[in-house]
Amino acid sequence: MSSPVPTLVALLHGPDQPGLVARVSGWIFERGGNILHADQHRDMEAGVFFQRVEWVPANGNASADTAAFQAFAASLGMNARVASSAQRPRVAVFVSKFDHCFHDLVLRHRAGDFVGDLVAVISNHPDLAPAAAAYGLPFYLIPVTAADKAAAEARQLALLRELQVDLVVLARYMQVLSADFLEKCGGPVINIHHSFLPAFAGGKPYHQAAARGVKLIGATAHYATAILDDGPIIQQDVARVTHRHDVDDLIRKGRDLEKSVLAQAVRWHLENRVLVYGHKTVVFD
Amino acid sequence: MSSPVPTLVALLHGPDQPGLVARVSGWIFERGGNILHADQHRDMEAGVFFQRVEWVPANGNASADTAAFQAFAASLGMNARVASSAQRPRVAVFVSKFDHCFHDLVLRHRAGDFVGDLVAVISNHPDLAPAAAAYGLPFYLIPVTAADKAAAEARQLALLRELQVDLVVLARYMQVLSADFLEKCGGPVINIHHSFLPAFAGGKPYHQAAARGVKLIGATAHYATAILDDGPIIQQDVARVTHRHDVDDLIRKGRDLEKSVLAQAVRWHLENRVLVYGHKTVVFD
Amino acid sequence: MSSPVPTLVALLHGPDQPGLVARVSGWIFERGGNILHADQHRDMEAGVFFQRVEWVPANGNASADTAAFQAFAASLGMNARVASSAQRPRVAVFVSKFDHCFHDLVLRHRAGDFVGDLVAVISNHPDLAPAAAAYGLPFYLIPVTAADKAAAEARQLALLRELQVDLVVLARYMQVLSADFLEKCGGPVINIHHSFLPAFAGGKPYHQAAARGVKLIGATAHYATAILDDGPIIQQDVARVTHRHDVDDLIRKGRDLEKSVLAQAVRWHLENRVLVYGHKTVVFD
Amino acid sequence: MSSPVPTLVALLHGPDQPGLVARVSGWIFERGGNILHADQHRDMEAGVFFQRVEWVPANGNASADTAAFQAFAASLGMNARVASSAQRPRVAVFVSKFDHCFHDLVLRHRAGDFVGDLVAVISNHPDLAPAAAAYGLPFYLIPVTAADKAAAEARQLALLRELQVDLVVLARYMQVLSADFLEKCGGPVINIHHSFLPAFAGGKPYHQAAARGVKLIGATAHYATAILDDGPIIQQDVARVTHRHDVDDLIRKGRDLEKSVLAQAVRWHLENRVLVYGHKTVVFD
Repeated sequence: MSSPVPTLVALLHGPDQPGLVARVSGWIFERGGNILHADQHRDMEAGVFFQRVEWVPANGNASADTAAFQAFAASLGMNARVASSAQRPRVAVFVSKFDHCFHDLVLRHRAGDFVGDLVAVISNHPDLAPAAAAYGLPFYLIPVTAADKAAAEARQLALLRELQVDLVVLARYMQVLSADFLEKCGGPVINIHHSFLPAFAGGKPYHQAAARGVKLIGATAHYATAILDDGPIIQQDVARVTHRHDVDDLIRKGRDLEKSVLAQAVRWHLENRVLVYGHKTVVFD
Repeated sequence: MSSPVPTLVALLHGPDQPGLVARVSGWIFERGGNILHADQHRDMEAGVFFQRVEWVPANGNASADTAAFQAFAASLGMNARVASSAQRPRVAVFVSKFDHCFHDLVLRHRAGDFVGDLVAVISNHPDLAPAAAAYGLPFYLIPVTAADKAAAEARQLALLRELQVDLVVLARYMQVLSADFLEKCGGPVINIHHSFLPAFAGGKPYHQAAARGVKLIGATAHYATAILDDGPIIQQDVARVTHRHDVDDLIRKGRDLEKSVLAQAVRWHLENRVLVYGHKTVVFD
Repeated sequence: MSSPVPTLVALLHGPDQPGLVARVSGWIFERGGNILHADQHRDMEAGVFFQRVEWVPANGNASADTAAFQAFAASLGMNARVASSAQRPRVAVFVSKFDHCFHDLVLRHRAGDFVGDLVAVISNHPDLAPAAAAYGLPFYLIPVTAADKAAAEARQLALLRELQVDLVVLARYMQVLSADFLEKCGGPVINIHHSFLPAFAGGKPYHQAAARGVKLIGATAHYATAILDDGPIIQQDVARVTHRHDVDDLIRKGRDLEKSVLAQAVRWHLENRVLVYGHKTVVFD
Repeated sequence: MSSPVPTLVALLHGPDQPGLVARVSGWIFERGGNILHADQHRDMEAGVFFQRVEWVPANGNASADTAAFQAFAASLGMNARVASSAQRPRVAVFVSKFDHCFHDLVLRHRAGDFVGDLVAVISNHPDLAPAAAAYGLPFYLIPVTAADKAAAEARQLALLRELQVDLVVLARYMQVLSADFLEKCGGPVINIHHSFLPAFAGGKPYHQAAARGVKLIGATAHYATAILDDGPIIQQDVARVTHRHDVDDLIRKGRDLEKSVLAQAVRWHLENRVLVYGHKTVVFD
């Protein structure tokens, strides 16, 4: 549960060295902060230390601590990202025609599951405009065709900048974002893929799954990277299927997986629980 | 539970046509048989009908019914395999050095989980000879090297024929069987692969999984075919892992998956619940 | 998937006897019907036979077959219920203030998951009236107080009769229906309880679960009976929790269980897959 | 994975207060120790702080640190238990006639899954004596009858003391240990119950489950207390069942649950990951 008092969360990682836990907690303690949660991990093989620490700063210290902690972490040779619970991330949801992940995200948001704000629904199709309107969410129609994809992405990027979006969520958005978009976007982009990656990357994964005769179908939430369906995995889940399930059944059963896996990944990201390093994620859940 | 009275099980499949359920059940009824279980499936797209039917034949009719049913099925244009519960399949287990699936299969066998008999443990290494001896199981050491693989496979095939083996189970046997072996073997070969195929086919799947940063690891039991890790899938299962699990942890957690998935596949196969067609299986569980 | 051609589904059960599968399928075949699915079960101990059979009747035979099959089943000493896919069941959803199951059911209904129609939302609180209106669903406010409970139930019953409701779904409706209501209602009432029954029956199950320190929480969909939380169970599922989850977390995690378990039970019921006998259900999935 | 260098693990809990994380890590750092893992939890409602911290003490400091840490924790008003990885706990397994948990524990032990030693198999029946002998494990037959139960428990207690047993594991031991035994035993006793407690406490839980018609069966590992099946729960898991599964099937499927749930609980306990407080456990996994 989020605390009513503003808290700071730092995600840090860097070369392992003795005493890191003591130094970080000592630093916070000396500045009058109180640690609520601290979780760390060591990749023994790579010699890397990872930590998520959440604390209540001393009265009035929140913004000073943010900058000071980053400097402190740098002095330890660590990479740090510090976020305040007082600043709610701004989220844009990209959709096309499928609406299940869209409804699911919005309803969870309204139930208070996400520490962030939905500021835009962006789509290449007009289909979900009425649903967005019913929820009181701003809807932006930016059609995309093969010929004008670059121009469409430029419009999307301008909109994200204008709305100061911190996180893009692809809720079954049926266009591949270009490497150029991802680079210029700057911020994180979470995608939901409807298979247990790395199996069935690319198009029509449920058809691939039916053709291969697997006994489990899955869904994978990952950060989008320039290589399709290859970004760091945040969350995965599977459901059992049998020979009785045809492709339509897989699609229906898969919707539940897609909804819950995407929602979990977005929730963790917004709570600053996900640390990407290399091709992988450390999720402090 | 298996019935104390001998029963017959037929697995049949072929082009769908109206009245198949009625004709099959009618045939059995007219010959004085009593159906215990009947399960069918239609692949609507391919127009194929599948059925597993288990019945108690009229007194003394068991062997006559076996042949007669096959002729009857052929008259419907169906492919049928009929087995009697009075004839327990003979199973050979291939092992190398890993012993977890081996112990698991033997202990389940002793607990009465399998309607079949373990008649041979065949290995390319001597390591499990004492364990086999302790269980009172015949152990055959057939070393395999790159140079003499063909000769070793010839010895294995001769042994399988001599022991009248009906099913070969590869319980983490660390050699790839040649296409030639599989063809000459004739009978089914069940393999356990330590990933959720088709992800991480080939060697060292736990290392591949750790490198990709997946959040689930899996195991897959499948019939071995000439193409490695590509045969029809019988059963799959997964377990959740996190960044805290290194390759050794994946190997340890994976052992439980390998044991239960392989055992389930062997159990279903021995109970004549698995029907292979094309690249897939229909499992009447 | 539901067939575009009208089909009939019969659920039958009664004393086991030889030849039942053959007789039922023979009867359908002789009247020109074609069996799409047939699934049966024997309770060996109790000597009871259960069957679900779905068939395409001969052209124009649908309503004649319905009555004729029931007579035929009676002649076998079997209890039968026959439904036609041409008649979609009419469903009333009872709600109070919690909206997650309500939204979930409506969105699944709109996605085509249910072979039935939502004809009424009935509530003891006005809170969900706007949400029902946004979905275009008729909303009926029937407040309930301790003093006027009998009168309120009488209004509910009158409404159910007027709307010719076939199934009542309690989507986290926070009132206990009286034995008198259940008897007069006549039709089935599906309830969702937020624990893995029989554990934590009664009020505040998440608080009970937190107090007991269980490592799994669950949800149970069951037919309501006069004894609270004791009716035949249709579906159950669980999710893993740890010491880190407080009661609020259990409630949040539990919402996902409640949604999927209730939806699955409603789906099965509407497809005539659930047969109640004694205190239990046979679910032909 | 356990470290080859000896490490210390402290489990501590007590009233929450600011700076605890910093003080504990500071104490270890100042004495030249290096923290490998530190995990903490706050029960916000009860105001209790829990921590598991594992560190490599400075060279030659292991035993001094053990005592010193306990004194330090006491000075913070905390309750602490400190264990060294150099001292492997001694485990006695109690069995009766069922052998699946017994084989499972021994095989996992031989595979190196447990940081502890199996020093005795104690049984009220002679059935498993040959199996224990085959594994080279000392087997102690202590028959128990209603008349001589107190005497039998006295013999068990004497044996546990003589063998300096640190942990008793009831691997489907079919006798209820008296409150007197548990009190005199002193150390922890882990039991496996074959239901998802608190459902189906007491005898014949699979029969109870079949009678109630649940769709999931479970197993629960818990610390034994004077009240039957009511001790703090360490681990639980469930498996799906249908109407097709009779009591014998539940028993067979349940064996797999019992094995894995008990093994997981024993593993966690031996790695000092389980902290009991009140009626519950905190498991630092």
